[in-house]
Amino acid sequence: MTISEFEHQMMQRCIQLARRAEGKTSPNPLVGSVVVKDGKIVGEGYHPEAGKPHAEVFALKDAGEQAKGATVYVSLEPCNHYGRTPPCSEALIAAGVAKVVVGMVDCDSRVSGSGIKKLRNAGIEVIVGVEEAACRELNEAFIHRIEQQKPLGILKYAMTLDGKIAATTGHSAWVTSKASRHRVHQLRSTCDAVIIGGNTVRKDNPQLTTHGVAEHNPLRVVMSHSLNLPEDCKLWDVMVAPTLIFTEKDSNPPLQHLLLEKGVEIVQLDLVTPQAVNQNLYERGLSKVLWECGGVLAANAIADGTIQKIMAFIAPKIVGGQTAPSPVGDLGITQMSNALSLKRVTVQTVDCDILIAGYLQ
Amino acid sequence: MTISEFEHQMMQRCIQLARRAEGKTSPNPLVGSVVVKDGKIVGEGYHPEAGKPHAEVFALKDAGEQAKGATVYVSLEPCNHYGRTPPCSEALIAAGVAKVVVGMVDCDSRVSGSGIKKLRNAGIEVIVGVEEAACRELNEAFIHRIEQQKPLGILKYAMTLDGKIAATTGHSAWVTSKASRHRVHQLRSTCDAVIIGGNTVRKDNPQLTTHGVAEHNPLRVVMSHSLNLPEDCKLWDVMVAPTLIFTEKDSNPPLQHLLLEKGVEIVQLDLVTPQAVNQNLYERGLSKVLWECGGVLAANAIADGTIQKIMAFIAPKIVGGQTAPSPVGDLGITQMSNALSLKRVTVQTVDCDILIAGYLQ
Repeated sequence: MTISEFEHQMMQRCIQLARRAEGKTSPNPLVGSVVVKDGKIVGEGYHPEAGKPHAEVFALKDAGEQAKGATVYVSLEPCNHYGRTPPCSEALIAAGVAKVVVGMVDCDSRVSGSGIKKLRNAGIEVIVGVEEAACRELNEAFIHRIEQQKPLGILKYAMTLDGKIAATTGHSAWVTSKASRHRVHQLRSTCDAVIIGGNTVRKDNPQLTTHGVAEHNPLRVVMSHSLNLPEDCKLWDVMVAPTLIFTEKDSNPPLQHLLLEKGVEIVQLDLVTPQAVNQNLYERGLSKVLWECGGVLAANAIADGTIQKIMAFIAPKIVGGQTAPSPVGDLGITQMSNALSLKRVTVQTVDCDILIAGYLQ
Repeated sequence: MTISEFEHQMMQRCIQLARRAEGKTSPNPLVGSVVVKDGKIVGEGYHPEAGKPHAEVFALKDAGEQAKGATVYVSLEPCNHYGRTPPCSEALIAAGVAKVVVGMVDCDSRVSGSGIKKLRNAGIEVIVGVEEAACRELNEAFIHRIEQQKPLGILKYAMTLDGKIAATTGHSAWVTSKASRHRVHQLRSTCDAVIIGGNTVRKDNPQLTTHGVAEHNPLRVVMSHSLNLPEDCKLWDVMVAPTLIFTEKDSNPPLQHLLLEKGVEIVQLDLVTPQAVNQNLYERGLSKVLWECGGVLAANAIADGTIQKIMAFIAPKIVGGQTAPSPVGDLGITQMSNALSLKRVTVQTVDCDILIAGYLQ
């Protein structure tokens, strides 16, 4: 099978459309679709959020009568089951499309090839695997959620070229450039939740929003054993974005009472571990979780397998200080040869900073 | 003045030739030269080491009779003074060349435009500033030496993506890939000296050579206040490369005696500071000094202005550990906003590692 440049372009367009809903579709995947007739796009659509129709349905609707005999491009295999919406395979058959080009097979066991089979049985030509790597990357969090039964964890930190996330005093505003911080705000808009620990709340009093770069703000999550936190914090203003606290049973009852009144959600756990928190977020249907915590919590999250991806923003500056905080606390690794290697590493510049990203094994 | 692609190419060739002597010419600059007749190179040369003839002399000799009426390209302004060799300006005039293309004006006050003037007065056409930035970069150490009256200091370190140069135990073999270590060996071959502190000698027992990637090994320098060092160290084998120790007066007399017998040079200083060491290396005629020391000495060298350039090799791995050593010790900086910014930052990959380099202000 030779894939034409045009087919690549159409699938890239599907991915572009799908990204419009980044951060909003979990537990569903990001999906985009275009309908092509006589070499021209006659319909476009994407899945906007869970509970709303799928991408193909919007694209077919947009194409109207022209869908008959057309080719439909879709970044993920059309679903074939009755969920909150009827199966897309049936919609495509009903519309009388001639051909369907699929980016990747759905890893959801309820679909997993059955959508493609249904279409082929109905006499529709189906091509699978156009821009598959890009389609998989688009839905890396969804795929991880389905395959591992937990959300994808991304650890993001900003450090100096000498490996420090703050000066010896703890002062850290700012390590990276405005452009990098903007990039982090964009990254947050693609995530379902952002997590920090109590230390970061006390030290930085962060807002953890997208600061207006996107409409969607992630769920703001705080892990605090003791709930020894200030009464006045930006995170307690849930009009801006929802806030969820994980804490131990009966920690700081007066503050719990106050925060519940403000609309903050509180979940009490026997042990406030990254794994326990992650399990809860999974059950809530979340796929992509951004850890913006300090070194101790980051190390715990790495050690218990909650982090899959690292995104390190490096500012070309030297702050010095053996005791100045570094991004990852103790992992119990005593030999350099046992350090955790990253795979699929990418390097890019963001204004004057350097973003190095990669995946733990 | 429009500079043709050909002229750029010829000057690039001069730079390439000049680099053959990297690490060998101090206190002299690196210089390359080509002689061009009828659009073809008819002679090439470079300055091989201090005390030997200059690049133009070799290139003219290589061109022979064809130098008459030719164009000579040279990366640095021809000298015009009697040093250890007669002035190149006179050699060019005597050879009857028609035109001289110069990469950059010499910043040495004994030359500084007078070579160009002499040529022009003799009726030779002179063009100045072809590939000037590349010519300046070629001789950044020489220029720094002339302008600042001290050698250029380069701090090189290898760290993990979480900012560690070793595990919590001090174990550090190896942080970076074989390709990065090879790159460091190449870097050493371009330097006049490599410096470490006593801690690194005790901990790593390094050889600090080019490991055969180049003929030239830098002078190996150890800074040790107390001379509390092992009797048996790779650095004490001066058949491999010369070794120079800076220590305090009358420190560890038995070891001093032993090392002097082995051929190690020892300089006793009132205070063994990076600045004092740097001054001594300047007086020895050195231009380019590579600091491969640990965090404490690195911080001292940065703080007293001995380091101008940082080269950080970053391995995409996570080792963790708040107490694991980081590349730069205490600089007394308490606010992130006062961190030392790097300018002219470059990023490149070396196998799986990332090399970030830049200049302190």
